[in-house]
Amino acid sequence: MTIQMFEKPLGMRDDFPFIAKKKTELRSKGTSIMEKAGYDLLQTPTLEYYETIGKISAIADNALFKLLDSQGETLVLRPDMTSPIARVAASKLLKEKMPVRLAYYSNVFRAQKREGGRPAEFEQMGVELIGDDSLYADAEVIILASSILKELQVESVRVVIGHTQLLQLILKDFGLSEEQIDLVREALVSKNSVGFEQLALTLPIKEESLESFNRLITTSELEEWKQWIDPLNTEQNSLYEEMLKLHTIMERNGLTDSVTFDLSFISHMTYYTGLVFEFYGAGSGFPLGNGGRYDGLMKQFDLQVGATGFGLRVDRLLEAMAPNREKESQTLVLFTEETEQEAHGLAQKLRSEGQRTTLQYAPAVQALDEFTALFSDVRRLDGGKNG
Amino acid sequence: MTIQMFEKPLGMRDDFPFIAKKKTELRSKGTSIMEKAGYDLLQTPTLEYYETIGKISAIADNALFKLLDSQGETLVLRPDMTSPIARVAASKLLKEKMPVRLAYYSNVFRAQKREGGRPAEFEQMGVELIGDDSLYADAEVIILASSILKELQVESVRVVIGHTQLLQLILKDFGLSEEQIDLVREALVSKNSVGFEQLALTLPIKEESLESFNRLITTSELEEWKQWIDPLNTEQNSLYEEMLKLHTIMERNGLTDSVTFDLSFISHMTYYTGLVFEFYGAGSGFPLGNGGRYDGLMKQFDLQVGATGFGLRVDRLLEAMAPNREKESQTLVLFTEETEQEAHGLAQKLRSEGQRTTLQYAPAVQALDEFTALFSDVRRLDGGKNG
Repeated sequence: MTIQMFEKPLGMRDDFPFIAKKKTELRSKGTSIMEKAGYDLLQTPTLEYYETIGKISAIADNALFKLLDSQGETLVLRPDMTSPIARVAASKLLKEKMPVRLAYYSNVFRAQKREGGRPAEFEQMGVELIGDDSLYADAEVIILASSILKELQVESVRVVIGHTQLLQLILKDFGLSEEQIDLVREALVSKNSVGFEQLALTLPIKEESLESFNRLITTSELEEWKQWIDPLNTEQNSLYEEMLKLHTIMERNGLTDSVTFDLSFISHMTYYTGLVFEFYGAGSGFPLGNGGRYDGLMKQFDLQVGATGFGLRVDRLLEAMAPNREKESQTLVLFTEETEQEAHGLAQKLRSEGQRTTLQYAPAVQALDEFTALFSDVRRLDGGKNG
Repeated sequence: MTIQMFEKPLGMRDDFPFIAKKKTELRSKGTSIMEKAGYDLLQTPTLEYYETIGKISAIADNALFKLLDSQGETLVLRPDMTSPIARVAASKLLKEKMPVRLAYYSNVFRAQKREGGRPAEFEQMGVELIGDDSLYADAEVIILASSILKELQVESVRVVIGHTQLLQLILKDFGLSEEQIDLVREALVSKNSVGFEQLALTLPIKEESLESFNRLITTSELEEWKQWIDPLNTEQNSLYEEMLKLHTIMERNGLTDSVTFDLSFISHMTYYTGLVFEFYGAGSGFPLGNGGRYDGLMKQFDLQVGATGFGLRVDRLLEAMAPNREKESQTLVLFTEETEQEAHGLAQKLRSEGQRTTLQYAPAVQALDEFTALFSDVRRLDGGKNG
């Protein structure tokens, strides 16, 4: 393959000014909401050891960008932000201040096999709330993510909520083994309902329970979950009670209409152990973001604490945000050698008044008509006619 | 080597909240000034082809982070921002709108051989003004960089200005060959004045010219340059005239006191072809940033246009910025199951009034005294005493 001069690697993109500007706005609004809620911004390095972050991350090994450092160690470009932040939070510095609230706005990397629209580098914005195992922590991050989506004017926001652990307990009650439960999970992750029902037929589920089993993928209201809760199973009941409490909090925050309680919803991120959720909005068929409880991940860093968080995908938020087609006002001041001083003074004045102003030596412009056409206001101190 | 759980690769760093917050402020101030002056923000990908960006960049090959993609092509983590922006500007989209003004705030990568304080990843903020070969373009970027340093309250700012091409012509007049000039350049890049004088003795410089040659490294005022300008050499004279014009513009912008005209100053970035400059400030012995004219680089992308720009190093700006030791005001609202609703309302109210507010379920905190001590204001709705 011969690489052309202007080519970029597979899945790599340039953000042109229009997008870069929207991103700046999104970043500023998002981080400001997270900070206002008591979250501290953190930035971890782009490169991490494969041994520490690469292996722990829930991203498939073949989607990792790997390289060797000068010592022969394998490095990875960070595939997600949750593991690096868990690394930092578990380090001595923050361990004594639990619960810690950390926020990030960072790019992450996923190697692509072929050119197909999926980006190999994209930005995520999110939080991790580490050291709080209560339901209130989960509620807090869901409400926080929702308020960011609201501030960004994303329309028709939907939050899908599931519970990994409760689903696991219910699947066990159908008499399934760990291996069989894993098969069910795979079918659910790929959201393949036909595959799910076909799989059900191959599993040792009692005939009278089959209909009930197949109904697992149809829930959207929390009260529907009740039918699978064994009244004698205290673990199931206490988890269901928590979900009812969450429902009340969502209600109080005006989120009831946008929440779907889908018992069969589970994440492809294997480190989630409890409550899991995913966000959708108008303008993008893909999830805008997701999150959940990942107490298990912290154990990998020798820390026995609860943790929950969310990550929003900036590229999808941009698609979902209300479009702003307003042409920005921008002044051009054209000058010659003789008027340079005057032009400079004018530009300074305009800028101090808040007006975006480009100062340009006219003889250096090759196509003056095309160039001036790019501006909403042209001040000619080069002898040309003001347009 | 065994990698410990919390280790990061050589030269990789975590930005803790205090630094991350300062960076956010710096980024916002800097990009706002660049935008106000008519520059458009651009973001290029982290990974580029070695064939296009890796080879063109002025960074030594062994300082590049290289990896193979799934097609077996060699990729690099971008070592600088000038070459990727030149790639974008030279592409069809922007070619017809010259001169283009592009700005960036991005991280770049330089592999380190050993742990010694030098970061392998750091952020740069800067502009590229492409398609303008006039002196006014150079003046514009120097003034712009200066105004960013001023806005960031960097003290004792110094701008060192040299001219690669003029120095080259003067060295030629001493009867030096291209190879000998290269040796002189190397001594100058490393700022080794002893080495420079020793080198002079080995060069075929006439004895009566030796003193004059050694004086090359002593200039700080533009008028001192005059002594080497051959009155009959029109190229030298016209370049010197331009420098005089630049001096006038600097004067008018109140920068005369902070400018040093050092004829022997040249950059380690080999793509600079004309005016070059470097910024210093109190608080950091290293340059805060640098820049210059790099018309040659654009030719690599088949574009015969002038280009100039600067890049500022964010890590060094942070050291040079006036310290802000003010403890940020942050409220903590502690609640129990009974007071959750009330606490939520209080937090919302405080946040809407602009107060940064953390909402925390009290029973989930293990060390309550240590935790509450982190806040400037604690509202206890958990039955505890307000502190």
